[in-house]
Amino acid sequence: MQSEEHFLELLDTHFALNNEFVSLGRGDDCAVLTGGKPYCVSTDLFLEDVHFRRSYFTPADIGYKALAVNISDIAAMGAKPVAFTMDLMLPADLDDDFLNEFLKSMAMLARQNDMVLAGGDLSRAEKLGVSITIFGVTGSGEFLQRGKCAPGDTLFTVGDLGLARAGMLTLEALGEKGREAFPAAVLAHLRPKPKVMIGTLLKAAGASSLMDVSDGLARDLPRLLGPNLGADITLAPEQLNGNVLAFALGVGEDPLQIAMLGGEDYALLGASSPDTLDKVSSVPGLTIIGTVTDTPGLRLNGEPFTARGFDHFEN
Amino acid sequence: MQSEEHFLELLDTHFALNNEFVSLGRGDDCAVLTGGKPYCVSTDLFLEDVHFRRSYFTPADIGYKALAVNISDIAAMGAKPVAFTMDLMLPADLDDDFLNEFLKSMAMLARQNDMVLAGGDLSRAEKLGVSITIFGVTGSGEFLQRGKCAPGDTLFTVGDLGLARAGMLTLEALGEKGREAFPAAVLAHLRPKPKVMIGTLLKAAGASSLMDVSDGLARDLPRLLGPNLGADITLAPEQLNGNVLAFALGVGEDPLQIAMLGGEDYALLGASSPDTLDKVSSVPGLTIIGTVTDTPGLRLNGEPFTARGFDHFEN
Repeated sequence: MQSEEHFLELLDTHFALNNEFVSLGRGDDCAVLTGGKPYCVSTDLFLEDVHFRRSYFTPADIGYKALAVNISDIAAMGAKPVAFTMDLMLPADLDDDFLNEFLKSMAMLARQNDMVLAGGDLSRAEKLGVSITIFGVTGSGEFLQRGKCAPGDTLFTVGDLGLARAGMLTLEALGEKGREAFPAAVLAHLRPKPKVMIGTLLKAAGASSLMDVSDGLARDLPRLLGPNLGADITLAPEQLNGNVLAFALGVGEDPLQIAMLGGEDYALLGASSPDTLDKVSSVPGLTIIGTVTDTPGLRLNGEPFTARGFDHFEN
Repeated sequence: MQSEEHFLELLDTHFALNNEFVSLGRGDDCAVLTGGKPYCVSTDLFLEDVHFRRSYFTPADIGYKALAVNISDIAAMGAKPVAFTMDLMLPADLDDDFLNEFLKSMAMLARQNDMVLAGGDLSRAEKLGVSITIFGVTGSGEFLQRGKCAPGDTLFTVGDLGLARAGMLTLEALGEKGREAFPAAVLAHLRPKPKVMIGTLLKAAGASSLMDVSDGLARDLPRLLGPNLGADITLAPEQLNGNVLAFALGVGEDPLQIAMLGGEDYALLGASSPDTLDKVSSVPGLTIIGTVTDTPGLRLNGEPFTARGFDHFEN
């Protein structure tokens, strides 16, 4: 890339500048989000050799996933994404083709969701990194939050548990060849599908609480429940994707452990009170996984489940 | 740091969770910015060995400046900062003391401006890095933009030109000892003062256009003017800080070149039409630097000025 000006021109070829939620687009000291309804806002890092590897992510995979994981947070509020900002850390060895593929793929996902790139910053760095902050709205101005469950609520997920983790471990072990071994699992890791429409439907159906599963069910479910509640989970291997079962067989692990500890599932996890359950459970792709209890802690198929999986910062 | 949970607790000891602009604070998939007036939004990277060095920035300097450069973008819209999100990249060698000093200093600046930390993300990385996205509001819901100048408008700055660059070059050459050599210059680089109050006064006084100078006057002024206008600049060495003059003398450079090319000044740069000039020029600290012309290009003291200074991405 020759200059920052050249990069800004490149952005203009890919990303919309305005929509009804962005009245002043990128190019000034700030962008302006129009007044009226409240905005929900979230931010996520997507860093080389922490969240992705250039060896088995294509430039298009990186551009797609950097935005997709952020959209997933908006979906988890029952909201619709409308705009985002992007801070980009670029190593000197990336050529214009890489950057074009990266932006094109991100822009396609942005366009599918009518999103504007509202601003950003650009810097040299040793490794490629993306920091996106994303904005969403709902029609009512209300959002689906965590911590609104009650004992007796039914717990559900939408999306595969453990599949992305099986994909990540496959890619780490086999590199590009992993795509042939477990295509569904690899795709779940490289191209997670944000569930905006499902989130909107769950909100309309009256779900009591919703979040996205990014650190694994065992770590994220307590965050949905809050400190005073627990859950009885019922999960059978038949409910999991065949790639999870085959991967588990291959590495000699319990597929239910992989599903519980997962990581980067970007599934939705929510709760419904008994009186909205009919409507909520008619949302496409929904799987019932258990019940909220008034005693803290998780139980899986009747047994206490205490494993929590991986924390980057535990030492 | 033992865990992500520990880090979140640390944040709670330092940063406010809610104010009238943040109805749902950090801890859910998204935070919620309350509806009503429009928000202006900006984002900036602050990266080790690109924007700062750990050798001569204290942890408190880093925490302060990472937020201050973002506040400066809000000030440049004539707005008041109300909230920010922070993505943090942490090397494994940072201890809890470092992190505490970093957060304490950032939190003091946030508190002075009644700002909420509305969310963020945390990741391991090889170098320390901060990506902040910041939100501001104005009483009227309107913002001071670039590109609203007209020929004949008076150009002004608030804040020192070239001082921060002299400080940066001094620190690069002398390390910690640079603090003794040129204290004002070093302070301008380590602790730039965001000019929120000044920006608000300039907006109230009717300035036509405003921005913050982060890449040097020669590079930023054309961005204020837009593609069809130019500027006649009048600058005398006596208008510059004595540290800039002394630094220029020491390195055998023209102090006006240092002022024009600057970098990281975080001064405000704006324009006023003749009919608001009385009010605008009464804002404290304001220096008149020239006039907007209807021919593109910059002229300094009657001579064409074409140097543009440093672009990270030119090669």
